[in-house]
Amino acid sequence: MLTNNLTVNNNTLYIGNVSAVELAKEYGTPLYVMDENLIRENMRAFKKSFDEYYDGNGLVCYASKAFSCLEIYRIAKEEGVGTDVVSGGELYTALKAGFDPKNVVFHGNNKTIEELEYAVSVNVGRIVVDNLTELENLNGIAQKANKIVDIQFRIKPGIDAHTHDFVKTGQIDSKFGFALETGEAFEAVKKSLEYNNINLKGLHCHIGSQIMDTEPFTHAVEVMFTLIEKIKSELNYEIDELNLGGGFGIKYLENDDFIPYNEYIRECSVVVKKIAKEKNLKVPFIMIEPGRSIAAPAGITLYTVGAVKNIPDIRKYVSIDGSMCDNPRYALYQSTYEALCANKAAEEKNDIITLAGRCCESGDLIGKDMPLQTVDAGDIIAVLATGAYNYSMSLNYNRLPRPAVIFVKDGKSRVVIKRETYEDIIRNDV
Amino acid sequence: MLTNNLTVNNNTLYIGNVSAVELAKEYGTPLYVMDENLIRENMRAFKKSFDEYYDGNGLVCYASKAFSCLEIYRIAKEEGVGTDVVSGGELYTALKAGFDPKNVVFHGNNKTIEELEYAVSVNVGRIVVDNLTELENLNGIAQKANKIVDIQFRIKPGIDAHTHDFVKTGQIDSKFGFALETGEAFEAVKKSLEYNNINLKGLHCHIGSQIMDTEPFTHAVEVMFTLIEKIKSELNYEIDELNLGGGFGIKYLENDDFIPYNEYIRECSVVVKKIAKEKNLKVPFIMIEPGRSIAAPAGITLYTVGAVKNIPDIRKYVSIDGSMCDNPRYALYQSTYEALCANKAAEEKNDIITLAGRCCESGDLIGKDMPLQTVDAGDIIAVLATGAYNYSMSLNYNRLPRPAVIFVKDGKSRVVIKRETYEDIIRNDV
Repeated sequence: MLTNNLTVNNNTLYIGNVSAVELAKEYGTPLYVMDENLIRENMRAFKKSFDEYYDGNGLVCYASKAFSCLEIYRIAKEEGVGTDVVSGGELYTALKAGFDPKNVVFHGNNKTIEELEYAVSVNVGRIVVDNLTELENLNGIAQKANKIVDIQFRIKPGIDAHTHDFVKTGQIDSKFGFALETGEAFEAVKKSLEYNNINLKGLHCHIGSQIMDTEPFTHAVEVMFTLIEKIKSELNYEIDELNLGGGFGIKYLENDDFIPYNEYIRECSVVVKKIAKEKNLKVPFIMIEPGRSIAAPAGITLYTVGAVKNIPDIRKYVSIDGSMCDNPRYALYQSTYEALCANKAAEEKNDIITLAGRCCESGDLIGKDMPLQTVDAGDIIAVLATGAYNYSMSLNYNRLPRPAVIFVKDGKSRVVIKRETYEDIIRNDV
Repeated sequence: MLTNNLTVNNNTLYIGNVSAVELAKEYGTPLYVMDENLIRENMRAFKKSFDEYYDGNGLVCYASKAFSCLEIYRIAKEEGVGTDVVSGGELYTALKAGFDPKNVVFHGNNKTIEELEYAVSVNVGRIVVDNLTELENLNGIAQKANKIVDIQFRIKPGIDAHTHDFVKTGQIDSKFGFALETGEAFEAVKKSLEYNNINLKGLHCHIGSQIMDTEPFTHAVEVMFTLIEKIKSELNYEIDELNLGGGFGIKYLENDDFIPYNEYIRECSVVVKKIAKEKNLKVPFIMIEPGRSIAAPAGITLYTVGAVKNIPDIRKYVSIDGSMCDNPRYALYQSTYEALCANKAAEEKNDIITLAGRCCESGDLIGKDMPLQTVDAGDIIAVLATGAYNYSMSLNYNRLPRPAVIFVKDGKSRVVIKRETYEDIIRNDV
């Protein structure tokens, strides 16, 4: 199985020692199921890597855009990790869950004035400033509030995580952050030092998603240190924090590569310490922002098969009661997933099927030509590794209510997000 | 302008004689604005074409997946058009709005048992049966309810609307309906005649989206008539209704082609009457299902500019307070739109910009390299022809609340769907 918490007993799929078939019966389908223990384990793995390889001199911030709800912030809080939020809505949810605002990092390429005011008013730990307009707005807001705001700058280090090359026009062409190689980033740092209500703490970079290699991260460290060094030598200002962002890859398919979560920081810490020593710079406090890597492997989605449509010599469509509404990742990115029949879990995957959603949209598939057990109407399908960017990207197209999210732990289950009703769907209609 | 209801006065964009800038001030941004008169005009245009070219022997069914809310069903009802729904949620909304279930057509490749029961219990006018599993389920449900259910069959006519060819493997490879050329459709018809609680009224086909030509529709008529003829000659059964589905193209860009809404049915009616006469078949009642063509041109979306990021020699990003959450069509299909600055509407579009959403996702753009007036932070951007598949496909990624939908009419505005709040976002979190 993709993750160790998925087991098969009596031809039935179990997640966190709970039968997926029983969950489907009890809560209905489509259904998101997440294993709380695995979420916690993943948070701990990243955290432990800092203790082990970097003297605990860092903070893991759960990137909550991957999966945001009250309960996940409560868990992050219990596990002693911070969180990164990208909107007023995520910040609101985190605070409602009792999250300490000091451990919140606020991101976004276009935070609104209202959001910046909100973040300043609740004393968010770090605001990651994306552009000069925002820097100016933020200073004004902080001034009015008579506060000094700790910021990091979002830097485009010019690294393409997939080729490991320093691509001059590639990564610079992004809506996010300040370009390093044009001098834009340095100018922003210089400017920020003139503002009275801004306290520049660190530099942030994010080099991509689903990265299956440590080298792009160590390369990012090297590149970011060129800026840290320039800031020290030319502005006589010491950068305390280096935020390396997220992008840690996970296994979506059985044969995908997978790097243990501690490897990234283990390798980065070697490079950081080496450069800091060589260049006589402060060893920075390091932050990382894993989202997908924490939430995705912990989640599966359960569906009930409706019609099976075999088009001879062409394709077999298995239609399910879910759709791009609960998992838009195939429609958006042609993402690939493992699936299995939860009530035939020990049987061989002897069929190749296309998992079709129920939306009135021909592009509404969950996956094309996937191996699966032979299934019929009424069977339960589990799609694996759906814990991130599924619920969080869910929609109500065709006015389909969103599924519930269930957490399982040690053989027990509980509702974490309630299933939407038809009444929910029309609640804001006048 | 793209549509006649958009006008410019005093350098300001007006929609339905209401200033877009005033709307942005009054209701905030992002904001969906739709012109009620244009929605009604579009419904009437399709309806009138039946009166003019087909002796009124047809029904326009608004395909509500394009834009569904209580008010649009009320308007459809007032205009005397039917509606097509694709889920229990859309059916629920239509009924709550007081829609006559007799004028509702229920679609979908995988309606659930509960939805079929719901549709039967409220006496939906037509259920468009997609597959044999559904046919059997439906007959059982109708039997239990002691009812006879009027159905149409969804047929894949094997037409590629873009090449006008009869593509043997192309269109047959779809999750929707019964293939015509394999004999599957005919077998389904035969089967349905054996069921006591099923009354086969008609045949349905849907040949594509955004079709800018009448020829694919007349071709579909010809192909569907081969099946109607075969059913009559071999099963001695007369098909009463021909449902030609939707797919009528609209202008998204100034230079897009555009076919008046009456042309499709005008040309089809000629072909239908000719074939019916030649083959001695009943002239069928014709149904069509325009969705996008009614809703899309009537809507615009208003945004406020946040940061403007000019990357010399590469690209200029204009970041707005909306995103793929309110318009996911660029992320999904790389769709193109016209945009203009609502408060500089008379000025020349002398800039080329990329309209960037505020989501933490590099693919979150509304459009790439679009002509626009030179804009700064605080300017109001209008994106045109967003009335369909924008609100209906909206999501809460990054926990962004969905915008309000405002209807304007004769210089006045009113809220039709309320803006979501942060409280809305967490309402189902436990």
